Amino acid sequence: MLKLKAEKINISTGNIWTAVLNKDTAHKLDLHPGDRIELCVVNGKRGACELNVILEVSDRGFNHKIGLFAETWKKLNVKKGDTIEVKRSVKPDSLIFIREKLMGKPLTAKKIDEIIKDVVAEDLSMVEIAYFVSGAMIHGLSDTETVNLTKSIVRNGSQLHFGKGEIVLDKHCIGGVPGNRTTMIIIPICTSLGLTMPKTSSRAITSPAGTADTMEAMCEVAVPAPELMKIAKKIGGFIAWGGGVDLAAADDKMIKARHPLSLDPEGMLLASIMAKKFAAGSNHVLIDIPVGPQVKIKDKKKGRHLKKRFEQIGKMLKMKTKVILTDGEEPIGRGIGPALEARDVMDTLSGKNVSTDLREKALTMAGILLEMCKKAKKGKGYEMARVQLDSGAAYEQMIKIIEAQGKKTLRPKVGKLKRTIKAKKSGKITYINNKLISRIARVAGAPKSAGSGLWLDKKLGDKVKRGDVLYTIYSDSKERINNAAKFAKENPYHIH
Amino acid sequence: MLKLKAEKINISTGNIWTAVLNKDTAHKLDLHPGDRIELCVVNGKRGACELNVILEVSDRGFNHKIGLFAETWKKLNVKKGDTIEVKRSVKPDSLIFIREKLMGKPLTAKKIDEIIKDVVAEDLSMVEIAYFVSGAMIHGLSDTETVNLTKSIVRNGSQLHFGKGEIVLDKHCIGGVPGNRTTMIIIPICTSLGLTMPKTSSRAITSPAGTADTMEAMCEVAVPAPELMKIAKKIGGFIAWGGGVDLAAADDKMIKARHPLSLDPEGMLLASIMAKKFAAGSNHVLIDIPVGPQVKIKDKKKGRHLKKRFEQIGKMLKMKTKVILTDGEEPIGRGIGPALEARDVMDTLSGKNVSTDLREKALTMAGILLEMCKKAKKGKGYEMARVQLDSGAAYEQMIKIIEAQGKKTLRPKVGKLKRTIKAKKSGKITYINNKLISRIARVAGAPKSAGSGLWLDKKLGDKVKRGDVLYTIYSDSKERINNAAKFAKENPYHIH
Repeated sequence: MLKLKAEKINISTGNIWTAVLNKDTAHKLDLHPGDRIELCVVNGKRGACELNVILEVSDRGFNHKIGLFAETWKKLNVKKGDTIEVKRSVKPDSLIFIREKLMGKPLTAKKIDEIIKDVVAEDLSMVEIAYFVSGAMIHGLSDTETVNLTKSIVRNGSQLHFGKGEIVLDKHCIGGVPGNRTTMIIIPICTSLGLTMPKTSSRAITSPAGTADTMEAMCEVAVPAPELMKIAKKIGGFIAWGGGVDLAAADDKMIKARHPLSLDPEGMLLASIMAKKFAAGSNHVLIDIPVGPQVKIKDKKKGRHLKKRFEQIGKMLKMKTKVILTDGEEPIGRGIGPALEARDVMDTLSGKNVSTDLREKALTMAGILLEMCKKAKKGKGYEMARVQLDSGAAYEQMIKIIEAQGKKTLRPKVGKLKRTIKAKKSGKITYINNKLISRIARVAGAPKSAGSGLWLDKKLGDKVKRGDVLYTIYSDSKERINNAAKFAKENPYHIH
Repeated sequence: MLKLKAEKINISTGNIWTAVLNKDTAHKLDLHPGDRIELCVVNGKRGACELNVILEVSDRGFNHKIGLFAETWKKLNVKKGDTIEVKRSVKPDSLIFIREKLMGKPLTAKKIDEIIKDVVAEDLSMVEIAYFVSGAMIHGLSDTETVNLTKSIVRNGSQLHFGKGEIVLDKHCIGGVPGNRTTMIIIPICTSLGLTMPKTSSRAITSPAGTADTMEAMCEVAVPAPELMKIAKKIGGFIAWGGGVDLAAADDKMIKARHPLSLDPEGMLLASIMAKKFAAGSNHVLIDIPVGPQVKIKDKKKGRHLKKRFEQIGKMLKMKTKVILTDGEEPIGRGIGPALEARDVMDTLSGKNVSTDLREKALTMAGILLEMCKKAKKGKGYEMARVQLDSGAAYEQMIKIIEAQGKKTLRPKVGKLKRTIKAKKSGKITYINNKLISRIARVAGAPKSAGSGLWLDKKLGDKVKRGDVLYTIYSDSKERINNAAKFAKENPYHIH
């Protein structure tokens, strides 16, 4: 035990509660980097605020002081000149459970909950979480473990609460297909029928646009949960950025630990998706798994395996869950990049310049959801969805959603510079390289520069003549459009 | 690419090259925490010093600046006011290899070397090293992988070089037995015979004293490598602290990543030990594996398995390696704690107050080493060792070693306060709880307070009468000796 003056370190990395001791001080207390210490402010009347933190040891500075990173300083409510009492503290039990999983022992619900609680409470370091990821990666998570993980993530995060017995729909796509913005058509269709469909979406990580980026080209997406609940109650749904709602705080931290090696343990993937649906109050969920050599799920066997697991876990969570395997061979729709995808969606909703594949996929999925929740009779879902789309009801509903989320525009600007890429021979388009399409759009500036990206004038199976425009690149930067054009020379379209 | 003013962060955690960007700056560059960036000082004539670092992102501070931790600041030779060019950089190939091992694929020599090179160059974060530890822990390391790991650790660290063909001895104990200071008797015996035996030892981590701590009660142990080489050449050997020589830098970093979960992957344990021997130039190695319910290796089966692996790996490394399984049932010798263990060793060496078990174990081991290197004929090693001990030659040699390493004293002071613990009944001692003995010694102040610890007046098998002193606790602090006495109530001695 030692009393030390507190010194603020003006960094806030949001990783974990951390304090820094000089190596001599650490030596005195027989402490090592990574050890846990208990801090307590001991200034007369205040104080009594205790916090367990992880120790870093510095070779320099902090003589007779303890360094506190900004979030630790704030959490402990330290004032300049305060004295901190430092004690060795015990390791959390969750470390024992993480070790057990790493060694191949299945985890009980209680042990999983202890781990997730500590992940959210910032009581586990990234290194420690990485060992949990390793265990899940190598030994897998059983259905029971996955369900328990899902429940723990939900229990230890924010939640949206709808009325008991209220039907709440959701859909999800296991990414990988450029332009696949069905969400922005399905939500207006379903909510225009009076159903509830609160949708949180992600931003692009490696793609040219996520649904949240595309939506952001027209309105706000970082909307706080209470505001979203108001919107959902008033007009049935919204399309917001999940990161702004924090429905699965534990999941975000585990994703950080998975990032360096791009690890995707199946059980964590399932729990991550299902927890977000569960936390959003959903009880009817449709999951779209695109299958194809260019997307995450390469073959139908793997697709069917995932389908089975999703449906089983949905059942155990008492969520009606349906999974469809879809064609991941080529981009969906014609816009690639936030503004261009937003235009594609709005044109398809308004019926003025329809992308047939986007329309058909959205109608099919909306139809399944309508049948799942018994709004439509069996076999009548597609037709009900079609009527909502063709009557303009879905388009009007989309405008209401955009307005409720703080409308910017219904027709976002695309890049000032454009470059058309033409066919070098006549024939039929037999292959489109999705990854290269995404790369060109990103090099052009998407998603940061919302107007940048591609418009696909031709799609798979189209017949073209030499000189026909295959696709158009948009950008706001001369340097970027030149670079994108260089990438286009690799030629994402194969003509035979 | 962006140019930013450098700001020094006066912390030096020695983990890895790290820089901090404000979250807005990171967003501009599409960078995430854990991403790698390339830094370059761009001040006119200087500059051109490039460094790949790992990014941390802060919620506050560092507006239009880049924060550099002390070691990164120094490495880049930054001066106040300097401008740093920041570029996204690629992930090292070693990450791919770590992922492969995690997924169960054996690693080639080249891939292991790439990982170890990056560990030493601080190009891998603790999270990334943790994934390597996970892979080694779960899938194991084959003999070939272990040998390659050993060679890589040696190649990427400091080495001691003796003459070609020179016999260099070493011994090692897979810890866990309190008071087991055979090293300090074996080295003087062997080197008094003209043999070379450069010994690097560890400090206590969870025990009351390591050999380095015990030696430190009498002389310096943090001696730089060139100085140690001089001593070895002059008098044949030394007993120094391994941490001061840095013979296995990669190993130290891997141990840090193993620390949070106390992970001990067998292959890493073997490589860690053998690399230190190899780097010290040893070619004749004796390894002592204590076996017993209270030590690391619980049963003979596990002991024999380890023996086989050590001998196989020694063979592959062209080091003559012999492994003995010894009795780990009770402490060796009578001193527990740095000064008390030092007294025990010196008394046993001088022959004035001999601890028989310590003497016999040391003679046996020295004998094996003398036969291994053909100094003694087969079956004559023990006798040769005994003569060196009983003639006083080994004791004189130990004094020479202590003097060469900067003698403090030959008879270190023990704690001013003492407390005797007496037998509550008559009978025979049938069990001594090693862990509890260690705990009491540590609570009394060992190893930080060198004079604190225990003197074991009775050992296993001894007959005692009610009221006989079983052991004596020494400490310099009243509070500590009281606490130790409380722990002593649990009673580490069983009498039947």
